[in-house]
Parts: sequence; structure tokens; C-alpha cells
Amino acid sequence: MQYFNYDKLFDFGVRLLTGKGVPKSKAEYISGIVVDTEAIGITTHGVAAFQFFDNEVGVNIDPKAAPKIIKEKDATALIDGNSAFGQLSMKLAKELAVKKAKKSGIAMIGVRNGFWLGALATHLISLVEQGFFAQLWAQNSTCKDCAPYGGIDPRFSTNPVALAFPTNKDPMIADISTAAMSMSKVNQLIRDGRKADDKLFLDKDGNPTDDPNAFPKGGTILFFGGDKQGYKGYAFSLWCEALTAMAGGDCNNPGAKPRQSFNLLVIDPEAFAGMDYYQKEMKRFIEHVKSSRVRKGFSGIRIPGDKTIRKLNEAKSKGIPLGEFMIEKLTAVAVKNNLSFP
Amino acid sequence: MQYFNYDKLFDFGVRLLTGKGVPKSKAEYISGIVVDTEAIGITTHGVAAFQFFDNEVGVNIDPKAAPKIIKEKDATALIDGNSAFGQLSMKLAKELAVKKAKKSGIAMIGVRNGFWLGALATHLISLVEQGFFAQLWAQNSTCKDCAPYGGIDPRFSTNPVALAFPTNKDPMIADISTAAMSMSKVNQLIRDGRKADDKLFLDKDGNPTDDPNAFPKGGTILFFGGDKQGYKGYAFSLWCEALTAMAGGDCNNPGAKPRQSFNLLVIDPEAFAGMDYYQKEMKRFIEHVKSSRVRKGFSGIRIPGDKTIRKLNEAKSKGIPLGEFMIEKLTAVAVKNNLSFP
Repeated sequence: MQYFNYDKLFDFGVRLLTGKGVPKSKAEYISGIVVDTEAIGITTHGVAAFQFFDNEVGVNIDPKAAPKIIKEKDATALIDGNSAFGQLSMKLAKELAVKKAKKSGIAMIGVRNGFWLGALATHLISLVEQGFFAQLWAQNSTCKDCAPYGGIDPRFSTNPVALAFPTNKDPMIADISTAAMSMSKVNQLIRDGRKADDKLFLDKDGNPTDDPNAFPKGGTILFFGGDKQGYKGYAFSLWCEALTAMAGGDCNNPGAKPRQSFNLLVIDPEAFAGMDYYQKEMKRFIEHVKSSRVRKGFSGIRIPGDKTIRKLNEAKSKGIPLGEFMIEKLTAVAVKNNLSFP
Repeated sequence: MQYFNYDKLFDFGVRLLTGKGVPKSKAEYISGIVVDTEAIGITTHGVAAFQFFDNEVGVNIDPKAAPKIIKEKDATALIDGNSAFGQLSMKLAKELAVKKAKKSGIAMIGVRNGFWLGALATHLISLVEQGFFAQLWAQNSTCKDCAPYGGIDPRFSTNPVALAFPTNKDPMIADISTAAMSMSKVNQLIRDGRKADDKLFLDKDGNPTDDPNAFPKGGTILFFGGDKQGYKGYAFSLWCEALTAMAGGDCNNPGAKPRQSFNLLVIDPEAFAGMDYYQKEMKRFIEHVKSSRVRKGFSGIRIPGDKTIRKLNEAKSKGIPLGEFMIEKLTAVAVKNNLSFP
């Protein structure tokens, strides 16, 4: 484990991307999202993205492309990701959503045909900091991760959802896979030679197992809820797919182009009872929640993601820890692109 | 098990409610929702509601009250349930949402201070039949059902969410508790002398158990995801609470008045890529999903709630089955109110 300066990691990302033809202001936005994700502790979806960009930019991702607005109504917009970075579609979606939610109370932006957003949570930070609620669903067109509930063959990606809302203090920011775990966690288990803490996979014949190696051998990950309640995770995942079809994207189809679709909902609490009542009631409620006795094996009662913004600020002053595995991978990316690695 | 004529059960509900001072057109709407819920097979939240009404109408529920619109924007409205039937708040919320979604693309209606809606799924049927997506979250102010993740003491109701969308054929209508099970299912297990199929409860000291009797002895129900992934169900439940605060309602507070808040989101697919693309892609996708091999122990691949509308139509022609337990309860309600029971 080694600590890296936030600005130097950010600068590395910018140099990598501009070297591949991405305009500087866009490279800065994208690198910022990537380094922030690492900074808030979602290490599976953080600076690992620089490897993804190294492989994809100029191959599948068009470094000069910009997402396009296809259609707008008072409270909605439809964006075509136009084979550009998913981060740029998200930036545009957030700008439109904030403008529309301020006017109409809420806004929903549907996006098709983009690339990997990385962790959903990171994108919602600026929205809760402005006092909005946000809900974000994402879907991948080609992944073979999860079988329908009761089935054996993969028909879904690990389709995640993120939920965020402000409180009187730290916002909640939750990032949830509709599968029992994200693909990055499956790979982590395999690398570490560990099993899952339950039978969360099916092997290629549909037998439940806790062995992550069943996955690369043609198995699948069960939905969130596992063997007995996976029908609930399945319903959430189907919702992601239906939003994709609604946005004109490709629902799961291993023969399609690998693209990500997402759906962003932004809500302005001022359109309802207003911030004063909201914050007062949330203060009382969160104190009530935190007054519960704590179970053996837990260190306290948390609100999901309540350390996100503190972690981000800390990373900017104290640096970001990276493990040997990631340092090695990024050093290889640096060498390949004739860049120095911090 | 005995079959009852749909119209006769409906008429029983209307007579019960009008006898308690509910205006006839409102009694008909409410009884229709209740009998439809039984008809679609959600027997835990169906005609059992007639018992609830027998106890509550004229005591807590004002039979003459009507919900009030507090605030409106292009795509939002805030309703005060005004101690009226939750079903009437929902009726108003749906009317407003459909009108606004047609104009603005989507609509969100926040409702506070209402009474028990029963099963969420039933309310969404008319919305998907009109071609809309719908998402509905509900919360109860006073229930002591679930502890915060990592905690022991109850701070949440079983806060449910329902998701519905049309397809080219049968719509998906999923109704999901953010707890590992609904309260009605806990009571069912206790009545049947059965255990849960996993350790889905905590006893009063925070020890996991599969015994539902731990609940009435001061225990709690774990969140959806159980002991290991319950932090996900916890996040969904917190979202329900935050929407309640946003609507000016009471987040969980055993000292407050027992009320239900809900939040309805309605989406018009025509505001995005439109129905033609949507239905074509959903047809392909659902065929892809259903082409999966089926696991041992399952009879086929289903889309959640895809039999809802068929069940409703069948119940209208063939009748609705009720068990001895429910027949006894409703007969007692009939006797108490000087009504004949079908």
C-alpha cells in the first residue's frame, strides 16, 4: 500500500486521455470523476478505469465525440451517448436535470449508447451537495452476468442503482448492484482465492455454489436476494432493462455493441414540503435511527455513504492509497503510453 | 377454501363502507381496490382490509374527509392525505400524475398523512394499462418492524416499493418489501407454526433467528438482503423515509400518529424513444430472457407480476377463493355491522 497525491493521479489521467486525443477540458472532467471514485473508497471502479480507457479510447470510445440531445420535454430529455465517454453523457444529463428540476420540480434524463460510467455514486455527489435527491439506474447491453430468476443462462449485467439524498448533515449516497455482487468483486474474490460468504453463484448447470471460479467457467452471479429472494433483485434488474428500451438503447443482447444506458432522476425537495421541514425532520429521524443499540460484530449505526464527502476531502489533503496490484497495472499503462507515473 | 363471486365481495365492501358514512362513489372505488388485490393473489393485503376498515373508519379514518392538494409545479404535486382513506389520496395522485406526465414527460406526487394503501401493486395496474412506467414507495410513521443495519432496536416499517412497466404483452408489476418479508407474512408464519427459510429475524437482543415468534417478543425483521446484504434493503428503506420527510410527513416515530406516506412516479415512454421502439425491443428482450434453460425446482422463467391482469379477469368470471380463516374473520365483521356476508 502506497499513498499517491490526489492532484498527481488526476494529472496522470489527464495526460493519458489528452495523449489519446481527448480535448483537455473533457479529459479533466473525466479524470476528476475517476480519481474521486478511488478517493471515496470504491476501489473496484476507481483508477482501474485508466486501464479501461487505455484499451478503449480510439478503439471503441471516440475521443472527440460528444453526446447529443435527441428530444426534450419540460421535465425530461433523451440523450444519445454517441459512442463518447459515459462520463460526458452524465455531465450533460446532470446539467439538463438540474435546470429542469429547478423549474418543474423533478427531471428524468434517459441516455443510450454510452460507455462505462464507473461507479454510479460518484456522479451523484454534486447533486446532493446542491440539495437534490437523485436516483440513477444503469445497464450494460452485452454482459453475461446474471440469469433470470429460476433460470440458468446469463441474460443480464449486474445492473446497478444508486440513491442519494441530502440530510441536515452528511448526505446518504448508496450504490447497489441488483446482482448479489458486482463483477469487480467477483474478480477480487478470484484473485484473493476466496469464496463468497454464501452460495451466490450458479455453475454452468445451474447448481448454487459459493465458488467464484464457477463464473468464468460459464456460471452466473445470483441476483441480490440470492437463491431464495433473488426474484426481488431480478425485478430491479428488469426495471434497468425496461428503462434502456425506453431510451432507445439495447437491452441485454450479447450480439449487440457493448454500450451502457442509464436513467437519471433528479428531485428538488423545494417542490414538496421545502428544505426547512425536510432538514428538521431528517435530523430528528437520523438521531432516532442512530439511538438504536448496536449488534455484536458491528461498530456503530451508519447511514450508507455518509463518509463519502469526508473521504473525498481527506484524499485531497492526505493522498489516496493504492495497492501493489493497481500500481503495477497503472505503471504498465504509463510505460505503454510513454508517460511518467506519479 | 371456498369461491366467492367478485361482484358480491365488492358489494359487501361497499355496504360496509357506506354503512360507516363513506359516500357511495368513494366506497365503490375503495372496495374495488381491495377486492382487486385479493383477486390478483395478494391475499395478505386483500379483503383482510375490510377488517382494518371496520376498526379504523370513524375512529382514525374520517369517512367524509378528502385529500387536499397543497402545492403543484409542472411535474410535481404535494398532497395532504387529510386523515382520509389512503386509496383516495392514491386516486387523486394518479389523476394528477397522468395529466402531468402526458404534458411534461414524467410526474412525481408526494403524499403525507394518509392511511394504509394495502398492496402497492394493485394501484399501478391502471397506470401500466395506459402505457406508463410507475414507481411507488410507501412508508409508515409508527411501525416497529426493522432495525437499522447493524442495530437491534426497531426504527422502520417494512417500507415497500412497487415497480411496473408495460411490455408488448403482459406488463411487469413487482411489489417488493424493503424488509426480508412483509408483516402479513410474519403473521402468516406464526399462524401456520412455521419458521422462515433463513435467519430473517433478530430477537430482542439482536441475535439472528428463523423463528417468527421472536418478532412479537420485541424482535425485528431483517432488511431485504438479510444478515449479510441487508445494508442494501436498509438503503432502500431510508429512501422511503427521506421521501416522507420531503413530503412533509412523519418519518418513523412510534410517538407520532399512525399514518402512511407515499411517493408516486409516473413516466411516459413517449417522452423518450417512443412506444414503437420500446415494444419492439422489449419483445426481443423478453424472448431472450425466456429462452434461458430453467433450473431444477422451477417451473419456468417468469416476468414478475405477468399474470396479474389475467388473474384479475379470471377472478371476475370464476370467483375469488378465500380460506376458512378469512371467511370467519369477514363473517364476524358482517355480524358486527348487521350485514349479510356473501
